[in-house]
Amino acid sequence: MTTATPPVAIIMGSRSDWPTMKHAADALDRLGVTWAAKVVSAHRTPRRLFDFATSAKTEGYRVIIAGAGGAAHLPGMAASMTELPVLGVPVESKALKGMDSLLSIAQMPGGVPVATLAIGEAGAKNAGILAAQILALSDEALAGRLAAFRAAQTESVHETVED
Amino acid sequence: MTTATPPVAIIMGSRSDWPTMKHAADALDRLGVTWAAKVVSAHRTPRRLFDFATSAKTEGYRVIIAGAGGAAHLPGMAASMTELPVLGVPVESKALKGMDSLLSIAQMPGGVPVATLAIGEAGAKNAGILAAQILALSDEALAGRLAAFRAAQTESVHETVED
Amino acid sequence: MTTATPPVAIIMGSRSDWPTMKHAADALDRLGVTWAAKVVSAHRTPRRLFDFATSAKTEGYRVIIAGAGGAAHLPGMAASMTELPVLGVPVESKALKGMDSLLSIAQMPGGVPVATLAIGEAGAKNAGILAAQILALSDEALAGRLAAFRAAQTESVHETVED
Amino acid sequence: MTTATPPVAIIMGSRSDWPTMKHAADALDRLGVTWAAKVVSAHRTPRRLFDFATSAKTEGYRVIIAGAGGAAHLPGMAASMTELPVLGVPVESKALKGMDSLLSIAQMPGGVPVATLAIGEAGAKNAGILAAQILALSDEALAGRLAAFRAAQTESVHETVED
Amino acid sequence: MTTATPPVAIIMGSRSDWPTMKHAADALDRLGVTWAAKVVSAHRTPRRLFDFATSAKTEGYRVIIAGAGGAAHLPGMAASMTELPVLGVPVESKALKGMDSLLSIAQMPGGVPVATLAIGEAGAKNAGILAAQILALSDEALAGRLAAFRAAQTESVHETVED
Amino acid sequence: MTTATPPVAIIMGSRSDWPTMKHAADALDRLGVTWAAKVVSAHRTPRRLFDFATSAKTEGYRVIIAGAGGAAHLPGMAASMTELPVLGVPVESKALKGMDSLLSIAQMPGGVPVATLAIGEAGAKNAGILAAQILALSDEALAGRLAAFRAAQTESVHETVED
Amino acid sequence: MTTATPPVAIIMGSRSDWPTMKHAADALDRLGVTWAAKVVSAHRTPRRLFDFATSAKTEGYRVIIAGAGGAAHLPGMAASMTELPVLGVPVESKALKGMDSLLSIAQMPGGVPVATLAIGEAGAKNAGILAAQILALSDEALAGRLAAFRAAQTESVHETVED
Amino acid sequence: MTTATPPVAIIMGSRSDWPTMKHAADALDRLGVTWAAKVVSAHRTPRRLFDFATSAKTEGYRVIIAGAGGAAHLPGMAASMTELPVLGVPVESKALKGMDSLLSIAQMPGGVPVATLAIGEAGAKNAGILAAQILALSDEALAGRLAAFRAAQTESVHETVED
Repeated sequence: MTTATPPVAIIMGSRSDWPTMKHAADALDRLGVTWAAKVVSAHRTPRRLFDFATSAKTEGYRVIIAGAGGAAHLPGMAASMTELPVLGVPVESKALKGMDSLLSIAQMPGGVPVATLAIGEAGAKNAGILAAQILALSDEALAGRLAAFRAAQTESVHETVED
Repeated sequence: MTTATPPVAIIMGSRSDWPTMKHAADALDRLGVTWAAKVVSAHRTPRRLFDFATSAKTEGYRVIIAGAGGAAHLPGMAASMTELPVLGVPVESKALKGMDSLLSIAQMPGGVPVATLAIGEAGAKNAGILAAQILALSDEALAGRLAAFRAAQTESVHETVED
Repeated sequence: MTTATPPVAIIMGSRSDWPTMKHAADALDRLGVTWAAKVVSAHRTPRRLFDFATSAKTEGYRVIIAGAGGAAHLPGMAASMTELPVLGVPVESKALKGMDSLLSIAQMPGGVPVATLAIGEAGAKNAGILAAQILALSDEALAGRLAAFRAAQTESVHETVED
Repeated sequence: MTTATPPVAIIMGSRSDWPTMKHAADALDRLGVTWAAKVVSAHRTPRRLFDFATSAKTEGYRVIIAGAGGAAHLPGMAASMTELPVLGVPVESKALKGMDSLLSIAQMPGGVPVATLAIGEAGAKNAGILAAQILALSDEALAGRLAAFRAAQTESVHETVED
Repeated sequence: MTTATPPVAIIMGSRSDWPTMKHAADALDRLGVTWAAKVVSAHRTPRRLFDFATSAKTEGYRVIIAGAGGAAHLPGMAASMTELPVLGVPVESKALKGMDSLLSIAQMPGGVPVATLAIGEAGAKNAGILAAQILALSDEALAGRLAAFRAAQTESVHETVED
Repeated sequence: MTTATPPVAIIMGSRSDWPTMKHAADALDRLGVTWAAKVVSAHRTPRRLFDFATSAKTEGYRVIIAGAGGAAHLPGMAASMTELPVLGVPVESKALKGMDSLLSIAQMPGGVPVATLAIGEAGAKNAGILAAQILALSDEALAGRLAAFRAAQTESVHETVED
Repeated sequence: MTTATPPVAIIMGSRSDWPTMKHAADALDRLGVTWAAKVVSAHRTPRRLFDFATSAKTEGYRVIIAGAGGAAHLPGMAASMTELPVLGVPVESKALKGMDSLLSIAQMPGGVPVATLAIGEAGAKNAGILAAQILALSDEALAGRLAAFRAAQTESVHETVED
Repeated sequence: MTTATPPVAIIMGSRSDWPTMKHAADALDRLGVTWAAKVVSAHRTPRRLFDFATSAKTEGYRVIIAGAGGAAHLPGMAASMTELPVLGVPVESKALKGMDSLLSIAQMPGGVPVATLAIGEAGAKNAGILAAQILALSDEALAGRLAAFRAAQTESVHETVED
């Protein structure tokens, strides 16, 4: 296997975000989409963020998933430096439970979009699925896997409340 | 001109959402992406929503932009019935100023993503741009127009605070 | 005993909502009202929701209790497809503690009502009691049981703070 | 015409709530359900509230709609003194825009339900419709009018965003 | 010992509020003010509340401390039926952490005041102290004990952060 | 007329708070209680606050009403330097509509109570009434005027919603 | 006069922030501190932000005041690229009234501080004063002007509520 | 070593705030800045606060870090009595998780600035760093240590999410 750039980059502000963001990776694995994950802190490594975001498209990435908590600037700043779709995951913060993360990611000004998902693990999982939905627009095989995933998900919802 | 389905559908819960959602259409116009807009109320026309969402992909749509306010169920319910990317715009509500709209759209459970944008006009505009960013992944010409749009946007930010 | 449809349907978005929603069932049991409970996910099983809600009245249900958390669309979407009274229970969500659930259920637009109860177990219990209050309008025996329940409840409130 | 008690009582904490609560009356008129409206302030006329609520059932009322704003105690206190269904409408308050009203009405403890609707006019309108839905369970003619109302509502949602 | 009515009544909506409200009693004990505590539920025992509040003044009480959580109607309803000062303590609720309790108690309409304290134990303690401050206006001995309490409190604040 | 200190001091953080706080003065006038009003800014005139609060009791004041907005420190700081009852009025702030004022006043730590009223004019009016209720505990004539005021208030609530 | 770099830079995300941020400039003018203002959008001109922040110290600036609204990333991102003190002003946003701006600026992770001021004009004015307080630590003349400003401010607070 | 006043004073409202505020001290230690910490309660020891704040500058302090929770008046009141920069740390409160602390500290009126940091430990750490950034403006050696600290911080952010 060569070292081709995978279509999805998962970046996060801190290594402590990985237990949340891993759910994005798991969803992508489930759907057969490769990914690369790295810690890129908007605040502690701004140069790394600058380098990553400005080169992401030419590197070959197609979708960026960015997770951060509190004053969560990573998704919006990545979005300001690339024309790739950026999906933002508000990581649950300690004091304010992710409400600060959600507002910091969702309330972007007109001109620079971030696709915001739910707070926490559900949002991370959905970022993975959404990335696949976007890639599936030009990937028939992935579209098929997505359809199967959604069908299986529907079937897995048992109607009874107790066994 | 034939009646080919445009790549982007803009749906909204009420005709009164159009002044907000029109900013999505304007952004798409600016970027040379065609669209169709229609009122589809999750609550007052659930059958219309069901029919629209389950057939959107086969109709030829590629991205759905859905705007709604208050208990804003339209984006999430559309997303539950299609594998197309759904971009949700929280329309500013009267009493709670869109905080209810934002939470109703963003806090989706794991398995069914909605890409949430900011409350109001900025979010609608960004939904249009994000739709274009998604489509540009497989459309070189659009990618070029997007890059030009972003460059022009950057240039339009004058450094001086007063003339 | 034949398989007559019970008057109350308890639906919920996920099996994990049952520990909360069970309090609705318990209240109905206490008041001698039969019920059926099933998992109907607005997002993962929209077709099941569509089928359930559009046929609930002809099936013989008279009141629907619907519980969901986060972007809680189940009660409002059920209400959009039936003329039966729908009672919505906001299940406590992990990050935002049910504030998102409450707003997603309560802030319905004019035209499609959902009777919203409190967040969590108290709300579920009250949904059961409210369903009985509604049914008691045309059921004298139930009205009598309700009056007895309320009287017993009043008597159970001991005035002393410590034994 | 005799002075028979109408099935629905609309009570409100202040005459200034009438512009909001009138939407409940209008919805009932539209559905052919008679009503009586009166100002009953939980805080300024507690005795009137006590008298009203304890006698509402024997007076012949079948559903109570109660609107109030701020520390909105009217719906919950009415519910504490009757077994009739009480529908609570949070009136939009000046400073906190009805968030205080909503929480004061919705967050009832287990044992005494209030069916809470949305903040403001939409909630008042829905209270009227919900009252009719409840009464229609034992009134075929009303059920027919409700079905017609809902169908007309659905038809009134034009799909086009502009004329 | 005769059965003279103590100057302060501590009422609460549920026996489960006592661990919080006990801090009011402890503060009163510390300041040498007698009290009586009883459970009076606005919602489950409205008649008991009516009887208590309308007779509190003639019974000989001089200040009422009322604690409740969630849709906390007890303080406001007590205040509506007496001219005695009513001090309201928002008990911390499960889901919304007392924000609902605080707004339900503090946001009273003009005409019927409730003196609202902080959420939880600190608020209960302060209700006890405030009751003593009010009584001390016409009780020189109590004023002296209060001054001593406050002086001792000031002295107890050691300036060093560690021993 | 001699220059006797009136029983109630009304202090406020800024002259711009007077339109709100005037409602406290009006309520006191209505009840025949004299008052003195002055601007005492916790932040801009801390020395004036220190002098006022530490001498208020010996000056002859019996109750202090303190209004402030935003980071509203005036009521709590006054309370820290006197054993007189301090009633705090959260003035509606521009951006956060008094939610900041409410929390800054209500959430006092155990040991130093502030009796918090509602945000804005209703709270100011109620502060005036509450001050009278406190003073009436040792003033029979005032107690009579209060009872008459409350009775008139009750009578003024017309039951009809329209003339 | 040469073109020496003034000690304070005032940057803002949009020219529309100037009516707010002008209050910082006015305060600095009042205190005899020179400043330069420019529009630097974190999202639309990230390169300009990068260049400004990384060179601000060597350019000769000593304090940076940064104002932004909504998902307000400008102050935090500037702080990530300089060791100069960064003072953040949350500009009042349309829908959420600056609560999103406040949380986006204040909730910075450990390691990269932003000194956050109040929402809106008061915050901007205070940013100007705080910048002067910081500079006055090594500027005796400025310290004198600051002391005079504060004294004048204290004197300007008239004690009477009406003329 | 003589008993020279250290440049930074760390004050807090209660000894229970020390586990949070210790992070400010640790950051200062790391950067080679000396400090003194003491408990100064705005509410329980207002005289100590008055004495501390009015003499802090002449005592030789150059920056004040003040931490408090709930109705957090300490930072603002200290700022009202000194021209030294005051950095405010909102300590996480029990019920409202520091939202009350944050608003009580940040929402200062124009004229008296407090530099507000994030809620909790991150905010305390950042207060220490910010104090150093301020002092470094006139201390070349400290500026060097700060630069080294920031560089080390950047280097410590490993790019990989797992070992």
